Amino acid sequence: MLVESPCYLAALQVFAFAGARIVPVACDDDGIDPAALEELVVRERPKFLYTVPTFQNPTGRTMTAARRREVARIAARRGLWIVEDDPYGELRFAGERLPWIASLPEAADRTVLLGSFSKVMAPGLRLGWLRAPRPLRAACALVKEGTDLHTPTVNQLAAARYLADNDLDAHVARVAAVYGTRRDALLAGLPDALPAGSTWTTPEGGMFVWARLPEGHDTAALLRTVVGFDVAYVPGAPFFADRPDHGTLRLCFVTQTPDEIAEGLRRLEKGFAAAAH
Amino acid sequence: MLVESPCYLAALQVFAFAGARIVPVACDDDGIDPAALEELVVRERPKFLYTVPTFQNPTGRTMTAARRREVARIAARRGLWIVEDDPYGELRFAGERLPWIASLPEAADRTVLLGSFSKVMAPGLRLGWLRAPRPLRAACALVKEGTDLHTPTVNQLAAARYLADNDLDAHVARVAAVYGTRRDALLAGLPDALPAGSTWTTPEGGMFVWARLPEGHDTAALLRTVVGFDVAYVPGAPFFADRPDHGTLRLCFVTQTPDEIAEGLRRLEKGFAAAAH
Repeated sequence: MLVESPCYLAALQVFAFAGARIVPVACDDDGIDPAALEELVVRERPKFLYTVPTFQNPTGRTMTAARRREVARIAARRGLWIVEDDPYGELRFAGERLPWIASLPEAADRTVLLGSFSKVMAPGLRLGWLRAPRPLRAACALVKEGTDLHTPTVNQLAAARYLADNDLDAHVARVAAVYGTRRDALLAGLPDALPAGSTWTTPEGGMFVWARLPEGHDTAALLRTVVGFDVAYVPGAPFFADRPDHGTLRLCFVTQTPDEIAEGLRRLEKGFAAAAH
Repeated sequence: MLVESPCYLAALQVFAFAGARIVPVACDDDGIDPAALEELVVRERPKFLYTVPTFQNPTGRTMTAARRREVARIAARRGLWIVEDDPYGELRFAGERLPWIASLPEAADRTVLLGSFSKVMAPGLRLGWLRAPRPLRAACALVKEGTDLHTPTVNQLAAARYLADNDLDAHVARVAAVYGTRRDALLAGLPDALPAGSTWTTPEGGMFVWARLPEGHDTAALLRTVVGFDVAYVPGAPFFADRPDHGTLRLCFVTQTPDEIAEGLRRLEKGFAAAAH
């Protein structure tokens, strides 16, 4: 199977546990490189591609509309199945909404779309949804039943009631606006906090900024010093299916207020400075 | 790993999916045969034994107190780990409560005890619990996290509130008494319903009676005729890790009223009669 490089860590773990042979596809700031994808589809004959096209975890990047169409055309031409995971797409605070790959005519009959209420309603409910082409649905239901029999009915009823009685879109718009101010706080403080020569993504939504420190930095090793300053980040290496980039790290901007983010970045700056001595 | 023969079907499926080599231990009406268990522990060096000692699924049988002590001694002597699954133990309507294997001093430090609220409170909550020796607990938490991140917090809080505000023991006593009358209705009708020469278990609790039809009967094949009479049972063959006994079947007595059970058994009798012609 194919994954983006880097890829959501927990997805890598699930696929590895299931015994999958995981092949990463080269990506740039616009998401999956279509030429690299098509070459791997032909050469490796993967069962499917797993992708988070919008506000990806860990990078925060979004696949452009043009890339989505190219990926859909490759799927149709080469018989590729796609699992399109979209837990963050609703959390947009800048730019224009892009179509799901699953909504493009070329890929609609070979794309499984995954959604979640965790990021837009309440993570404690543990509720998500799946939209799959008809030939896959019975198998999906069987796997779900084999995994946990079923999702708690109480929670499904509670979510249905919430959706009937409340305006989820209005709630998500409020949340996304708050997340936007927090991203701004993070981006404003990063130039001072990270070592000179670092680069980072500028997500238009979601929860994550992905940064790369200059050559020679190892974010896993640096974290041991940094946590001494009461701040932390997620080292990037485990998000790679092969050849990890040890200079990368993931920063989450949605949990803390702008002031707390600013304070965290000051601590991060001190931590990196201490590690450099 | 070792399992009882027969064994809870969904457990067999989970172990098989995880790639386990599953070895069944010989059992009789009192549960696991200790001599057979010890021989297999020495010969096969299993990672652990999975057992449902009380009102087992599918047989409804209960391991005697003497057998539990023998199994615990073997565990201590041979270094065997035990997973003791007890979803039905509270649903006792006859006989005396027996100690968990996990409560016996010989096995306390090498037995994982599993419990569930599904059978005593509400299956729709999907809540259970696990009691494990300290050296295993961190690994158990990690596996749980890798499987589904966590159990819905809403449901945990709802169950905690229910336990604080209600008398669960009184509720379970009422439920168990009802189940007792339903088991009685099933046992009263079985002699007429099953082909002459059939045998069955007499459980003192739980949800299941296990029956064996005389030589030459195949319950999976018979079911195709029987369902035409608007009644059904679970064929026994899939509950065996090896050499299935095709004459066996599982009957659940907790969902229908005594009258409905009596009617179901009349239909079953007609179904078996029709299949015999």
